[in-house]
Amino acid sequence: MAADRKVYGSLKSPATLKVLAILFELDLPFEFITVDLDAGDHKKKAFLSMSPFGEVPVYEDGGMIYFESRAVIRCTAHQYGNKGEALISWDARKQAMLSNWVDVEDHHFEPPALKLIAELGIKQNKGLAPDEGAVAEAEAELARVLDVYEARLEKFKYLGSDMYSIVDLLHLPNLQSLLGTPAKKLIMSRPRVSAWCSEILARPAWAKVLDMQMKAQVHSAF
Amino acid sequence: MAADRKVYGSLKSPATLKVLAILFELDLPFEFITVDLDAGDHKKKAFLSMSPFGEVPVYEDGGMIYFESRAVIRCTAHQYGNKGEALISWDARKQAMLSNWVDVEDHHFEPPALKLIAELGIKQNKGLAPDEGAVAEAEAELARVLDVYEARLEKFKYLGSDMYSIVDLLHLPNLQSLLGTPAKKLIMSRPRVSAWCSEILARPAWAKVLDMQMKAQVHSAF
Ligand SMILES: N[C@@H](CCC(=O)N[C@@H](CS)C(=O)NCC(=O)O)C(=O)O
Ligand SMILES: N[C@@H](CCC(=O)N[C@@H](CS)C(=O)NCC(=O)O)C(=O)O
Repeated sequence: MAADRKVYGSLKSPATLKVLAILFELDLPFEFITVDLDAGDHKKKAFLSMSPFGEVPVYEDGGMIYFESRAVIRCTAHQYGNKGEALISWDARKQAMLSNWVDVEDHHFEPPALKLIAELGIKQNKGLAPDEGAVAEAEAELARVLDVYEARLEKFKYLGSDMYSIVDLLHLPNLQSLLGTPAKKLIMSRPRVSAWCSEILARPAWAKVLDMQMKAQVHSAF
Repeated sequence: MAADRKVYGSLKSPATLKVLAILFELDLPFEFITVDLDAGDHKKKAFLSMSPFGEVPVYEDGGMIYFESRAVIRCTAHQYGNKGEALISWDARKQAMLSNWVDVEDHHFEPPALKLIAELGIKQNKGLAPDEGAVAEAEAELARVLDVYEARLEKFKYLGSDMYSIVDLLHLPNLQSLLGTPAKKLIMSRPRVSAWCSEILARPAWAKVLDMQMKAQVHSAF
């Protein structure tokens, strides 16, 4: 099974895991090439020729190279998704709404989530004390975002629409990691967010990503 | 001329100006409703019911409300663009490449650009001294991004492809503001970036945005 599709990335990188989730979701075969972030391989010349800002993942499909995970995800959903499925919409207005919420994940959800994962997960694991001020600020920010999500989930079954979509998928890695930190309380204390989180983390495609991590003995982002 | 399309925003807000640029580019009539940021109108209840994070612009089209400028821009280009035009592509791979560079503007170009505009434009105008350390850091970051752009423009006529696209359009407001600050040197010292910048700022659609600013006596972002 020679795969045209290649993912260069790290199983510790949320952006990499998001791309793997969409490939499993669409049953697309691919080759995975590990980039060793601890060894700084993403800042070496060979890698920079593919990813000029030195970030993982890099995605190669039919000779074209992309280095922004959300671009890969929205376009893969378009290119390979079936019109009947809902990972993305073919209706211009519905697509605009999904795009709006893709940008919310990018601009509002991910920044405080990554901050909390770094402070409460990664640092903790190294035996370092978290920066309490930074934690409080990020918790307040994430709480505000999750309040918006709780209200949205009152109106729609999923975050982007009434169907599972790339909007939900983009949240998987950081939700998974947050559940392994004390910031879990921000999720569990909001009934709709909490139910949504459990449901999307149970997707078979996400189980396949976790399975890849397990086989490589990578346990979450930290 | 009753317009279905409404833009709630500020002529000082780059995100608002980007949305205006796409509407003029596609000759779409719209109504503009000023949100007074100095008066904090974007943090009031009525506005928050449209834009839950209290940010401008808000875009309304046929009763649907969107509050992320890039989502509005990509989807308006799709919905109203002609297939022969190049603001966006209908080919999945070319579209993926444009999306990749849309995310570069979002993640890499805009953050240091906004920082420099705040320090060297807005503060300066208020008679405040810029934070020299922050300026140096943002200049180094922007220089790195513009080096990537210079290399890209060696291969393609525009940033996203060989045709003018939403990728270029997204840069207009911040390029325009940077040219009014000492950070202009970072643009002028790179021949391809400098030529690209002059060319895209000369688009008739952008002249219409500047005209709106002039009539409202708003002179750039600061
Ligand atoms: N815009 C990129 C961001 C990816 C990103 O932040 N990658 C991280 C790992 S998740 C990385 O490579 N960090 C290394 C670095 O920036 O030095 C995407 O979404 O694909
Ligand atoms: N994600 C938004 C960001 C817009 C944004 O940053 N808006 C700024 C003005 S350009 C704003 O409303 N700032 C006020 C605030 O955040 O309090 C978009 O691109 O539409």
